Amino acid sequence: MPKLWDDSIATHRHAVRTATLDATAALVAERGLTGVTMSEVAKRAGVGRATLYKYFPDVESILTAWHERQVGDHLRQLTGIWTDTGRLEAVLEAYAFICHEHPSSEPAASLHRSEHVARAQEHLVDFLAGLMLDVRDDVPPKELAAYCVYALGAAGAVPSKAAVRRLVAVVLSGLRGEAGR
Amino acid sequence: MPKLWDDSIATHRHAVRTATLDATAALVAERGLTGVTMSEVAKRAGVGRATLYKYFPDVESILTAWHERQVGDHLRQLTGIWTDTGRLEAVLEAYAFICHEHPSSEPAASLHRSEHVARAQEHLVDFLAGLMLDVRDDVPPKELAAYCVYALGAAGAVPSKAAVRRLVAVVLSGLRGEAGR
Repeated sequence: MPKLWDDSIATHRHAVRTATLDATAALVAERGLTGVTMSEVAKRAGVGRATLYKYFPDVESILTAWHERQVGDHLRQLTGIWTDTGRLEAVLEAYAFICHEHPSSEPAASLHRSEHVARAQEHLVDFLAGLMLDVRDDVPPKELAAYCVYALGAAGAVPSKAAVRRLVAVVLSGLRGEAGR
Repeated sequence: MPKLWDDSIATHRHAVRTATLDATAALVAERGLTGVTMSEVAKRAGVGRATLYKYFPDVESILTAWHERQVGDHLRQLTGIWTDTGRLEAVLEAYAFICHEHPSSEPAASLHRSEHVARAQEHLVDFLAGLMLDVRDDVPPKELAAYCVYALGAAGAVPSKAAVRRLVAVVLSGLRGEAGR
């Protein structure tokens, strides 16, 4: 097959995938995770049902791909904040606001792809662990990172942005405090 | 119906329920949540399938009842520790070890009864909020309690009992620290 043809297939595949995940994001925002069907996604994405089924066998696989893209976007956002500011506080606050806007119970519970969600969370823990090297030396960086990810998950359960900022302050106290004090 | 008959029905109902949930606990421990079937539960509990279906329409309803009983047991355990010791540290450490032994992702993800799991978590947050009255006055007790429940959930993701104790120390630092310090 000539290279041009290869490129054109890859471009088409990418376009279908992007349209599908954008349509899924819109449907999830409007109706929640259970409101997503293959027909609705195809219609909203402007692709035929047969084409959609060529790329995604079922709704679960679309939701998983959508969640992966979302987690990837969030990780890039956090990495950007770290590169720009070098401030752990800024990264943690940004993550807290992500949790506040996307309460974790919803995707975790309804996707019930625990391995998939667990893997996404591991990437985040690994990223944060890299920022925890100079934080407190009585606890390994990876445990501190897990503490942050879980504790900041509470941002999905608090009622206001002020409460999110208070939560971040409490989590930071935990990072800075000394054990057994 | 005579009272004696009523009592005997209630006793029978209670016995079936207890046997069912005990059998479910054993099956979950052996095979995980997805390994529980109506036939296996009936066999293990020593009740007929028809009897089982009279009390529980499906596996989901059994798992929900089992989870509710388990959460109730844990809450009673934590309340007992508080009554006996009056030490918040002891309550939080006990809860951390509960999370370590029952990693939350598993039931939360597979039961996908988010309202049910959310309600169970609310009871726990309310209980802990009652113990947070003198902790730090810049954050409402309920937010501190949510912080503890989420942060201690990380105990399900850490590899050792020593790591659980380090996590509890970090969480306590968060409770004791002062914001903006």
